[in-house]
Amino acid sequence: MNPSTFIVRGDICYSEVCGELKTLERGYLVCENGLVEGVYGSLPERFAGIPVRDFGRQMIIPGLVDLHVHAPQYSFRGTHMDLELLDWLNRYTFPEESKYADEDYARKRYTVFVNDLRRGATTRACIFGTLHVPATEILMDLLEQSGLRTMVGKVNMDRNAPDYLCEESAEVSAQDTVEWVKDCRKRYRNTKPILTPRFTPSCTDALMENLKKVQLRYGLPLQSHLSENLSEIEWVKELCPEAEFYGDAYDRFGLFGADCPTIMAHCVYSDEREIRRMKENGVFVAHCPESNMNVCSGIAPVRRFLDEGLHVGMGSDVAGGTVLSIFTAMMHAIQASKLRWRLVDDSLKPLSAAEVFYLGTKGGGAFFGKVGSFEPGYEFDAVVLDDSRHSAPCEYSIADRLERFLYFHQEQDIKAKYVAGEELFC
Amino acid sequence: MNPSTFIVRGDICYSEVCGELKTLERGYLVCENGLVEGVYGSLPERFAGIPVRDFGRQMIIPGLVDLHVHAPQYSFRGTHMDLELLDWLNRYTFPEESKYADEDYARKRYTVFVNDLRRGATTRACIFGTLHVPATEILMDLLEQSGLRTMVGKVNMDRNAPDYLCEESAEVSAQDTVEWVKDCRKRYRNTKPILTPRFTPSCTDALMENLKKVQLRYGLPLQSHLSENLSEIEWVKELCPEAEFYGDAYDRFGLFGADCPTIMAHCVYSDEREIRRMKENGVFVAHCPESNMNVCSGIAPVRRFLDEGLHVGMGSDVAGGTVLSIFTAMMHAIQASKLRWRLVDDSLKPLSAAEVFYLGTKGGGAFFGKVGSFEPGYEFDAVVLDDSRHSAPCEYSIADRLERFLYFHQEQDIKAKYVAGEELFC
Repeated sequence: MNPSTFIVRGDICYSEVCGELKTLERGYLVCENGLVEGVYGSLPERFAGIPVRDFGRQMIIPGLVDLHVHAPQYSFRGTHMDLELLDWLNRYTFPEESKYADEDYARKRYTVFVNDLRRGATTRACIFGTLHVPATEILMDLLEQSGLRTMVGKVNMDRNAPDYLCEESAEVSAQDTVEWVKDCRKRYRNTKPILTPRFTPSCTDALMENLKKVQLRYGLPLQSHLSENLSEIEWVKELCPEAEFYGDAYDRFGLFGADCPTIMAHCVYSDEREIRRMKENGVFVAHCPESNMNVCSGIAPVRRFLDEGLHVGMGSDVAGGTVLSIFTAMMHAIQASKLRWRLVDDSLKPLSAAEVFYLGTKGGGAFFGKVGSFEPGYEFDAVVLDDSRHSAPCEYSIADRLERFLYFHQEQDIKAKYVAGEELFC
Repeated sequence: MNPSTFIVRGDICYSEVCGELKTLERGYLVCENGLVEGVYGSLPERFAGIPVRDFGRQMIIPGLVDLHVHAPQYSFRGTHMDLELLDWLNRYTFPEESKYADEDYARKRYTVFVNDLRRGATTRACIFGTLHVPATEILMDLLEQSGLRTMVGKVNMDRNAPDYLCEESAEVSAQDTVEWVKDCRKRYRNTKPILTPRFTPSCTDALMENLKKVQLRYGLPLQSHLSENLSEIEWVKELCPEAEFYGDAYDRFGLFGADCPTIMAHCVYSDEREIRRMKENGVFVAHCPESNMNVCSGIAPVRRFLDEGLHVGMGSDVAGGTVLSIFTAMMHAIQASKLRWRLVDDSLKPLSAAEVFYLGTKGGGAFFGKVGSFEPGYEFDAVVLDDSRHSAPCEYSIADRLERFLYFHQEQDIKAKYVAGEELFC
């Protein structure tokens, strides 16, 4: 038997299909060469002799995926949530991000961020840095050491930002990006660069054109923001009167998923045309319900996205969101969907715990390939959850225990964590 | 100096006026005979020799107040949140509550509830039991032992409930209540009975009339539900066509605060007439934002209540809510108010962290008298919070640290707890 084969045992829970949970009490989960070999109720003969790490009645679930988080904003999370998006950016976010020009500051702050991300249940994340290349590489160094698998973006922004946080020109921004991408390719195995134009208001047409060239040259995925807040959307209309809708302002430059994997965060106000285009282009929606509440944006029509067959994953969106926990994001997703049903549109029924669990695992995981499920051939990302604090396990089904975990979990409930078959000691 | 005088020192934070925080770094908080004597930046000469318990840079805040929680529902919190109020009651809540006819079951379940309540930051609570007197007295025994100060209600319900959870008649319900009240007066010092008609749909006119007599005879406060959910409100209209509005269905029987302190939970859809009557009668609103999301009720217009000068406090409303933490309730109150502003009525501006902190301390505390503040003469309810896990304290103001605490706290961050001057070891 391959020496890299190992087995974990516990109460297994994962989702192959949105809305459906697969659960198995005291099941076996076999890892071979970093991939899931299979899930078994009783262990097949061929695995005799392979050591089994037995987690008792603890739950074993796929690692969680955070499709949208801003590392430099982690330092002021949970404060200053009294403004809407655009004012919040100008008043709190841009001044803080500008401090990452200082490498010592960046190292200190990013160390806290990466340590906290590592301790949680997240195994994969798509992360915004700042426009500063050295700070972004410090962040990537720390992530590479952490054992997590991430995509990280040096942010591009060359307009409508204060002088202290604005790139000199489209050309400089693109050139810096190219140098950074080249550097990343040499330095990192598990930390990939992702193209990150901040959002349409921050990027000139010239920058967008340049970034498309960079994208094609290096085959880069892309992450940005879309239809988050009403004032932002109005502003995009003014800035890009020729765009049919907000997403079209990206698509006109080929930066809306048509030929490279793309995540758009929020999509709170995406209309039918935008949804159709996202579907055609295979855009991933990063649903960030806590942030959408905290900066007064609204509630995204996630049910509509799911009905349409869009790719949807969860995002913590720190510091619009306050915590890195994707379990908390799942809780907020359920609650927000209920309020949307009640207050906005009762044709879109609320999300269930099983559905948001899918979004936070396989839904977002698909951006990383075969990630977020325990189906054979999926990368072996797994976290072990001790919910004995919440309940006597035998009194509840695994599905109930998972639902309770969304509401009751604390950091210390996460007992073990594997990423692509490698254990991270939390 | 009185031997019952003692002093605690730390970063002090409390609210005298809604929306304003009083903070003092490394301040002294003096307790004398169970009451707050004062808050001092440097200790007056007259306290020389009194031992000071120094909590360093930990935060010291008033104990939190939960104006609305269902003890028997604690056992299924965090599950079964897929239905609206009335279906949820029939499908999940009533079957569970019926089990409290069994005293062993009640003791086991209520022990978990009381232990968890004691470990948290709550020092005062208004609690629903079930209709069963023996189980309710078991709950009260446990609460009395806990050191918490609470009001507990044996529930009254004599209609529109399944046979297994419905009292035989209005007379039996009232008679049981009288016996229970007499018993409570003999047995408890810190655990007070509160009259608890479940809600209008569960109580016949005859029961309401009987309860008014009981209330007057024993001078009892009252707690119930009001204008929570649209279907419930429609049902009340059918059941009480003569009532001007939902609250009037209580007021017609004198059970709406006119002559006894009264808490009404939810008030999500209270109209102007109902708000006016609540104001005239001094009714306390228990705002339960998490529950109002989880069972798809909506969002209460708390800003409107505050503008009108109504008494408002926070409620966890477990198991409509999932957790006993009033910090979590404060977080949900802010978030819900932002969504209400965005989606329902932008004339009512969102609640601030300082405002919800007031609601969870002095706002709800007023139902217990001089409770929930560190003003001189207030009962000495205090909790000590260690937020060093979240941040280096010196980097943030106390106000920022408090705001962060709402979002990041975990049970173990609560380091000490005093109720009316007596320390509870958590």
